[in-house]
Amino acid sequence: MASLSEWRDRIAAELDATIAFWERHSHDPQHGGFFSCLSRDGTVYDETKYVWMQGRQVWVYSRLYRTVPRFRRPELLEAARAGGEFLLRCARLSPDSPRVAFALTRDGRPVRVQRTVFSETFCAMGLDELGRATGEQRYRAAAREWVLAVWGWARGDARELGRPELSGAPPQQALAVPMVVLALALQLLEGAGGDEEMEAMADWGGQRLLLHLQRGDAVVLEHVSPEGRELPGSLGRLMNPGHAMEAGWLLLRLAERRGDAGLGARAVAALVEGPLRGGWDPQHGGLFAFLDADGHCPTQLEWSMKLWWAQAEAMVALLAAYAHRPRARLLRHFQRVATYAFDKFRDPEHGEWFGYLSREGNVALTIKGGPFKGCFHVARALLLCEEMLEGLLQRDEPPPHPPSPQ
Amino acid sequence: MASLSEWRDRIAAELDATIAFWERHSHDPQHGGFFSCLSRDGTVYDETKYVWMQGRQVWVYSRLYRTVPRFRRPELLEAARAGGEFLLRCARLSPDSPRVAFALTRDGRPVRVQRTVFSETFCAMGLDELGRATGEQRYRAAAREWVLAVWGWARGDARELGRPELSGAPPQQALAVPMVVLALALQLLEGAGGDEEMEAMADWGGQRLLLHLQRGDAVVLEHVSPEGRELPGSLGRLMNPGHAMEAGWLLLRLAERRGDAGLGARAVAALVEGPLRGGWDPQHGGLFAFLDADGHCPTQLEWSMKLWWAQAEAMVALLAAYAHRPRARLLRHFQRVATYAFDKFRDPEHGEWFGYLSREGNVALTIKGGPFKGCFHVARALLLCEEMLEGLLQRDEPPPHPPSPQ
Repeated sequence: MASLSEWRDRIAAELDATIAFWERHSHDPQHGGFFSCLSRDGTVYDETKYVWMQGRQVWVYSRLYRTVPRFRRPELLEAARAGGEFLLRCARLSPDSPRVAFALTRDGRPVRVQRTVFSETFCAMGLDELGRATGEQRYRAAAREWVLAVWGWARGDARELGRPELSGAPPQQALAVPMVVLALALQLLEGAGGDEEMEAMADWGGQRLLLHLQRGDAVVLEHVSPEGRELPGSLGRLMNPGHAMEAGWLLLRLAERRGDAGLGARAVAALVEGPLRGGWDPQHGGLFAFLDADGHCPTQLEWSMKLWWAQAEAMVALLAAYAHRPRARLLRHFQRVATYAFDKFRDPEHGEWFGYLSREGNVALTIKGGPFKGCFHVARALLLCEEMLEGLLQRDEPPPHPPSPQ
Repeated sequence: MASLSEWRDRIAAELDATIAFWERHSHDPQHGGFFSCLSRDGTVYDETKYVWMQGRQVWVYSRLYRTVPRFRRPELLEAARAGGEFLLRCARLSPDSPRVAFALTRDGRPVRVQRTVFSETFCAMGLDELGRATGEQRYRAAAREWVLAVWGWARGDARELGRPELSGAPPQQALAVPMVVLALALQLLEGAGGDEEMEAMADWGGQRLLLHLQRGDAVVLEHVSPEGRELPGSLGRLMNPGHAMEAGWLLLRLAERRGDAGLGARAVAALVEGPLRGGWDPQHGGLFAFLDADGHCPTQLEWSMKLWWAQAEAMVALLAAYAHRPRARLLRHFQRVATYAFDKFRDPEHGEWFGYLSREGNVALTIKGGPFKGCFHVARALLLCEEMLEGLLQRDEPPPHPPSPQ
């Protein structure tokens, strides 16, 4: 097993290669913003600009510029700014509503709208971070407006998003909604004190997120009733281990912010260790994309495929859990997941990771980016892991239970 | 290679096993209609009733009852009638519109609506056939109302279906739309003379379908502009070989109805032989789910998976092409596809076919039915193939080019 410092170096080098890939291939010098539909070698195979991907890449570039000295390069900030300006200019469907498109043409005309809160979420994330990196308040003000809209929709009526109300459709909460509410609140709270509205939003997200822990915390369900009860059928039994682990490290951040040891322990047990135990393919390695809480076969065709983002979020969650309370098994889990991800997903020839492997671990789609894969999960996971490894290496004392080979 | 009569016997036996599976496991004696979410052994894992699947199973049962003597059993017709009555009672979203739900609760309350024409399409198909099987005109009248609504939406404004109009979204036609228009017209025309409205609808569907043949008939694109031009990006390059072949046998029926030899030859070359050539996996066998006309990697995660319905439609298309004009290579292709399908998809232990295999041909989802797989493609393909094989065997003369081993 590689040491912490070896992992730190490997991860830092991989982050450099990843950002180099996106800087080389994804920028649109004509209209600003980013192409995300990139072939293995970076060729643009579709010019559609996906709003999630715009906001996420603005976040990654701005965050790297602001927090990692070797990325403090003016061209990175300028690309982020061009992306942010593209979103401000083009993303909204009308000037009098915060609703934004899901996909835009290269020059910024709306192609598709989702009836969810996620496009606005990633606009907000990107612009808040861009405001921090540039020091320009107007970006953060725009972000806050979107954040409050998302929180309003999350608490309110789905009809505002254009979803029909149907008598047979039970009211439901998707795990992603409290997750993004919590993530946005934590983003806006970073380095801030006295922002009571965002503190309340973070608590709301954390509390609603806990409703997805069911059966005595033994399972994490993607959809529950607004009161936190199980829903019938496949929808109600659906689990997404990587998603649960992403929720885990977000909740752990809230627990640390609140100094709530009980919440922290619950996040690690139910949202990090549990989903890894239940979601890891014992035969071929890697986290499954979906599982059914009662052991039925999921109906998602990709249920047994290995998706890049799930492995990336698992790396973050396991290292965050270890940083929270160092126990040797957490570090061993991190090393196992990271080794699998580096072995199977990275492309040493062209940079960035493949996104979609078969159950057996073969590359199923050769694309490096698409409608749902851009410059985000790999870069964010590597950045967060590098930060956490750096922090662990700088701790004065060795961990109470030094890792040992199994 | 098995002879035609061996295939006829094998296919007839498989049809019996398939219908036995659905009769044993899918009926809801309480509310009528059919469960389609069935595990490998037939266990219901979700009670949601999908409207496509209701209409399709009503069609299969009614058609078998009406046209195949060994299926002329009262209980089969009663199950079809209970399904048809369930649709008439529950499928519509409101009494004053032909729009129906996509999914219903077990007791018939709407769960989900699609902004497409397909739920209404399958209500119409099922009820027209139920009307034929029972001799009750009211079912056929209800079907015709839905048929005319589908044709109206196909020619008219997508906004009637609730789709937003977005300035960056180019107007487009999906292959499925002219296909279902043609299929519905042919269904209503069966055994009918003098129905000029349906003859016009069939011609409209056939003409619009031909717009998807592009690049000198070398490719069949899933989406084109309403004027029949290629659309940009992945959407514009998307191909679905099984879908093209399904369109092929429908168009061949129109060509035979019109006595249009040129149209028939074009259907066989461009919609049957072309998609098989381009869509067959040379390494593992089976038709791919999706391909990109320029050779890029499709963005659909399941692009390289082998789906049951594509192989079933290919069997029908190849046999229909051979029946249209007997050439040895068409029969060899049929035998190759049917051998692959029987080897890989059928489940001799519990009946019916698996739906979803990995690229390599392993069962990826063990379910026998789900939101998009019910009692339809397997049963219809087996029924149509049995009919065509019977017809071929009864021809007085041997085919001009008798099949020979390669």
